[in-house]
Amino acid sequence: MSYPRANLVIVGLGLIGGSLARALRESGFSARFIGCGHREASLQRGVALGVIDEFTLDLDAAFDRADILVLCTPTLTASAVLERILERMGEGDGPVVTDVASVKGSLRDTALRVAGKMPARLVLGHPIAGSERSGVDASRADLFRRHRVVLTPEPGNDPAALALVRAMWESTGADVLEMTVERHDAVLAATSHLPHVLAYALVDALAGAEARADIFRCAAGGFRDFTRIASSDPVMWRDIALANRDALLAAIDLFGGHLAQLRGAVAAGDGEQLLATFSRAKQARDEFAALLAGRGQDAGSA
Amino acid sequence: MSYPRANLVIVGLGLIGGSLARALRESGFSARFIGCGHREASLQRGVALGVIDEFTLDLDAAFDRADILVLCTPTLTASAVLERILERMGEGDGPVVTDVASVKGSLRDTALRVAGKMPARLVLGHPIAGSERSGVDASRADLFRRHRVVLTPEPGNDPAALALVRAMWESTGADVLEMTVERHDAVLAATSHLPHVLAYALVDALAGAEARADIFRCAAGGFRDFTRIASSDPVMWRDIALANRDALLAAIDLFGGHLAQLRGAVAAGDGEQLLATFSRAKQARDEFAALLAGRGQDAGSA
Repeated sequence: MSYPRANLVIVGLGLIGGSLARALRESGFSARFIGCGHREASLQRGVALGVIDEFTLDLDAAFDRADILVLCTPTLTASAVLERILERMGEGDGPVVTDVASVKGSLRDTALRVAGKMPARLVLGHPIAGSERSGVDASRADLFRRHRVVLTPEPGNDPAALALVRAMWESTGADVLEMTVERHDAVLAATSHLPHVLAYALVDALAGAEARADIFRCAAGGFRDFTRIASSDPVMWRDIALANRDALLAAIDLFGGHLAQLRGAVAAGDGEQLLATFSRAKQARDEFAALLAGRGQDAGSA
Repeated sequence: MSYPRANLVIVGLGLIGGSLARALRESGFSARFIGCGHREASLQRGVALGVIDEFTLDLDAAFDRADILVLCTPTLTASAVLERILERMGEGDGPVVTDVASVKGSLRDTALRVAGKMPARLVLGHPIAGSERSGVDASRADLFRRHRVVLTPEPGNDPAALALVRAMWESTGADVLEMTVERHDAVLAATSHLPHVLAYALVDALAGAEARADIFRCAAGGFRDFTRIASSDPVMWRDIALANRDALLAAIDLFGGHLAQLRGAVAAGDGEQLLATFSRAKQARDEFAALLAGRGQDAGSA
């Protein structure tokens, strides 16, 4: 047991925050886990489950005790909470602060607006993991194992703070990557935010169709897999769509261009173009599936 | 054992044809199973597996011995084979002919073009079942159990022929529905053909992106499920897209309209509209998932 930083504060104790605390306790990364939030019932549940050791509803008090503070609230809430934390973050020996939000540009914007620059000990990050379940009761120590965590360090970041956040995630069994904020937001728009928008748009279109009853009667397993992500939390996805607006619009337009080309090929009866596109896509998808299988990720991953 | 029609001919012995023969043998629906096609190796394999009793490469000979003939070839091949069969279908006591193709309008067009009208004993149908595997080796007797089979009878159909085809599918454990050709093709365009085109378009767009390596590195289980159908057979899906052109174009345009609305809401930062759409879609998708779970279909269904 090394306890590189003894007190770990989790702000927002849900699936991600709870799983992080469990994983870090198991790996011995921190000695004491302090929950913080405004939903006392969740925090009490976290203590009862042994996920955290104690909790406080007072963000300032939590900040003052933290060696590392991890913002685990939903994307838009994270900006609001970060704003309050930024007011306490000086250039001194305060805690290292990091987060888990799906969009990084909106948090950096908040920091630039409130603090005028990115604080040296604020390191933004995003674990690409999740579950269809939510809440601290669904948390598990192995949620991040073999999953990717993207850190988006800024030029002014304290190297020791970055190393600490990296070590924290590595101790959960995750593979840690670094990217720019812009790259992260574009990549996640492509792999996650766009597919969610497409799935929501498709299900909404079909649910409003005159043939709705026959459509759902005849849909089967392929449709179920394709639309699984349309069962995701609408509030969370509204927030992500708003927070990652520009990258999401670019991804929608990239996709729209390819769809328009396929539509044109269908309209023209151009079997060659259809076959070429479908074949290219199948090859890329098979390669991706092999890659993912090689990583050993389970079916519940986000 | 009732053997309502003793000799059942399967033209095209792959996953679907093989599974149909297995299911009908198990249920005692027919006494003798005759395979027909041009790939002798598949047919020999079908005999070795006990799926069929015998085979012939001669379509005319198969037709002459059939009580029921089921066209189980891919969609575009089905039109070509049907053309040859139509030349032998009179108004007399020949076999009842049916098929399993994913598109019904293109086969009806073939019949109208070749025979001038729909023969009374030609009953078009489509079992909504499949597997990521293909070929007679992947066939199984329970492939259709609790799955939907859509029949698209025409006004001039012989009621006895329709009843026989319905009884055949019911004896496999399938739920049989009837729809018009137009309705079937529109419904399948929405639930199956459109999602395939969307998945192919998405994977092709991302595979061609500058950030391709990071995109596939950061994609996870949600993306895998969403793009699973982009691993489907490109030739089969080219054929389906060509055969169901008009209904597929209508489905693409319906979807495109909804995507454009969501794009507008993202661009305008209209959280209310995003939340309303996502919430409607989630509710519809959850209802559909509950419906499908209630049917007890397994994860491998098409």
